[in-house]
Amino acid sequence: MTAARAGNDSGTPESGTNDVRGRGFTSRAALSAVEEWVDASVVPLPPRVVALAAAASALGEGVVLAEPVTAPGDWPTADRAARDGVAVASSDTLGAGSYNPVPLPGAVTVAAGEPMPPGTDAVLPVEALQVDGPFVEALGSAAPGDGVERRGEGVRAGTVLLTAGHRLRPQDIGLLAALGIGTLRIGARPRVRIVLAGGPRSGPETLGAMLSALVARDGGVVELVGPLPADRAALAAAYAAHGADLLISAGRTGVGEDDVAPLALADAGELALHGVALRPGDSAALGRAGAVSSVLVPAVLLPGEPMACLTAYELLAGRAVRRLAGRGSALPHPAVAAVTARKLVSEIGCTELHRLRWTAEGMVEPVASPHRPGLAGAVRADGFVVIPAESEGVPAGATVTLRCFDGTSL
Amino acid sequence: MTAARAGNDSGTPESGTNDVRGRGFTSRAALSAVEEWVDASVVPLPPRVVALAAAASALGEGVVLAEPVTAPGDWPTADRAARDGVAVASSDTLGAGSYNPVPLPGAVTVAAGEPMPPGTDAVLPVEALQVDGPFVEALGSAAPGDGVERRGEGVRAGTVLLTAGHRLRPQDIGLLAALGIGTLRIGARPRVRIVLAGGPRSGPETLGAMLSALVARDGGVVELVGPLPADRAALAAAYAAHGADLLISAGRTGVGEDDVAPLALADAGELALHGVALRPGDSAALGRAGAVSSVLVPAVLLPGEPMACLTAYELLAGRAVRRLAGRGSALPHPAVAAVTARKLVSEIGCTELHRLRWTAEGMVEPVASPHRPGLAGAVRADGFVVIPAESEGVPAGATVTLRCFDGTSL
Repeated sequence: MTAARAGNDSGTPESGTNDVRGRGFTSRAALSAVEEWVDASVVPLPPRVVALAAAASALGEGVVLAEPVTAPGDWPTADRAARDGVAVASSDTLGAGSYNPVPLPGAVTVAAGEPMPPGTDAVLPVEALQVDGPFVEALGSAAPGDGVERRGEGVRAGTVLLTAGHRLRPQDIGLLAALGIGTLRIGARPRVRIVLAGGPRSGPETLGAMLSALVARDGGVVELVGPLPADRAALAAAYAAHGADLLISAGRTGVGEDDVAPLALADAGELALHGVALRPGDSAALGRAGAVSSVLVPAVLLPGEPMACLTAYELLAGRAVRRLAGRGSALPHPAVAAVTARKLVSEIGCTELHRLRWTAEGMVEPVASPHRPGLAGAVRADGFVVIPAESEGVPAGATVTLRCFDGTSL
Repeated sequence: MTAARAGNDSGTPESGTNDVRGRGFTSRAALSAVEEWVDASVVPLPPRVVALAAAASALGEGVVLAEPVTAPGDWPTADRAARDGVAVASSDTLGAGSYNPVPLPGAVTVAAGEPMPPGTDAVLPVEALQVDGPFVEALGSAAPGDGVERRGEGVRAGTVLLTAGHRLRPQDIGLLAALGIGTLRIGARPRVRIVLAGGPRSGPETLGAMLSALVARDGGVVELVGPLPADRAALAAAYAAHGADLLISAGRTGVGEDDVAPLALADAGELALHGVALRPGDSAALGRAGAVSSVLVPAVLLPGEPMACLTAYELLAGRAVRRLAGRGSALPHPAVAAVTARKLVSEIGCTELHRLRWTAEGMVEPVASPHRPGLAGAVRADGFVVIPAESEGVPAGATVTLRCFDGTSL
């Protein structure tokens, strides 16, 4: 399958898979077409069943439900005291007050969580009681239900508590534990091989730690290979090896003589597409790789320039990791509405990722043009905005969707 | 040290440390005073030094810098090609266009990242070149600096790249790797003992998984003990044991006969304070615990009612974990401005935590009163608002600071 071509480059669909070294790209695929290719080519892995405690200990990397969780029964399972005190029939406390203590013969002390004794419908807190030896008096009145947690008040049997795709939070773990739910069906942890395609030039060999962190964030387990030399046969062998659900390679995707990664992917399986109308990240490639007689797995080749690598990871490779992990295709970054302090200029026909930061006035401003390489801009930024291919940008004062790099920096 | 008393309860400072069983609280400490107690009692642990790759693999639980990171040198270290193409002296391309090819004798092919050859100041992309055997012609002109990444353009030597307290993100890892920074000084991982104080009533024994997830989120390493019976001596022994930097206990803090956790803490060290003007969570206690002849460590006793436990964790125990881990005192939840769809009523003299969710109209509405127990409300909620003790609440249409339970649900 080859994605349809679109945008300001108007070559034939096949041209993107030719050898571009020394000649340049005659066309680049529209990002929307590439996303469709990923969505059609990457099938979620089967969910796994884990104990609740194991899920709790893995929340940091994200634990996403593979199926809805339904309440197995009412919670609480019976009317019970919501506080420590004395269980009463509320009618017995009528008119009670600090100047009118009302005797409570046969009062039953209850602690929070204990079932309500028969004939009682309220719990007076200890502060509303006067205890004198065996005699207990009410210093205040109670309405029916005061201090009582009704059966099913928290959760009704059969209620859908959490939907499929929900990312678990600590309180979800707490509720499921209280309900006695001991195991969960959650998204898979795809095995992701990251191959660093190095060579004489600097760059890709420093990308392993960043890419490992990104893959872990999206739910994958990393096998890091390399850096390997810019050697077509060596790369093809690494791409084709068994044992991964997804191949990600970084580096050697451009138009230089040693940019042999796309050729190596063709040797190791299939080069479906090379060149994306995306800035930065336009030399990314997609395809499939695998050993002889094995099933081919999806493969994404990322540029070696660090900012292009990050962009192509977030929009293409990460999408594949998240789909395999049962997390859907959406970006994982918190999205907030933000107003631009300056205009963002974008080329029609090319999807552009702009790095932005908050201003002192609570607006957002660009910190680096999509044309500028390097991660320093992304480090200074609080998030990014994706300007679609059909847009020439947004003026100052426009509302955009900021994707936050870090949920805690809002 | 005993926190000053405040709020609608006006007992003496000492009264909160008396045995409240069967009598109730005569006073509760103001949350602000309790926060001051935590901040004064909990000293950050010494930072640890880790390799960059180890930091990268731990981003899910949060990795916080203990000191600023400064650029050791310019990046890039020299002018270099920002794209694949041909390095030229821009003056040699004056007037070039697709109808006016300009010969480039002695043109030097460069790949992105390679140093600029002497005498050149621009890189023409391969798309702007016409190659015919050994002859290369420019099909477009270049301005000085086109396609060139200048020395220090990304990062200047000595620039503070990341400040102390910064929570590392994947692109930070990438930049530090590119700059050759191999180790980092980051916040400690405090050893947190969680003791579940059980007993005949349900509740605390189900809280271990939730509390473990919360402590991990805040940077701690969990040792989970129990559930233990509601036995004063057994709890005191668990509280006093060696090997933790912080003790958190859940359950048996109320006014029932078996609520022996505060007494056990007094036996194991010091009960500084019992009862907080916080709803839910008002039976929380603080103090210190430790074995004979060892240094006492801070201790926080949380109520066993799950929602009260969650609230007291977030506002008190989590604050202690985060401080030990060098993360400061602030809540870790992303904060966003939100407009209330309905009023939030709060009791003066008591800090209240209200659980809220987004409405279809983009406002927030309460899902459960702070008086209602159980985690079901927190599971339905998108976040919470803390109403300070001096406020009687906010009307509908007011702007509040929503603390998001999950950064990805915005």
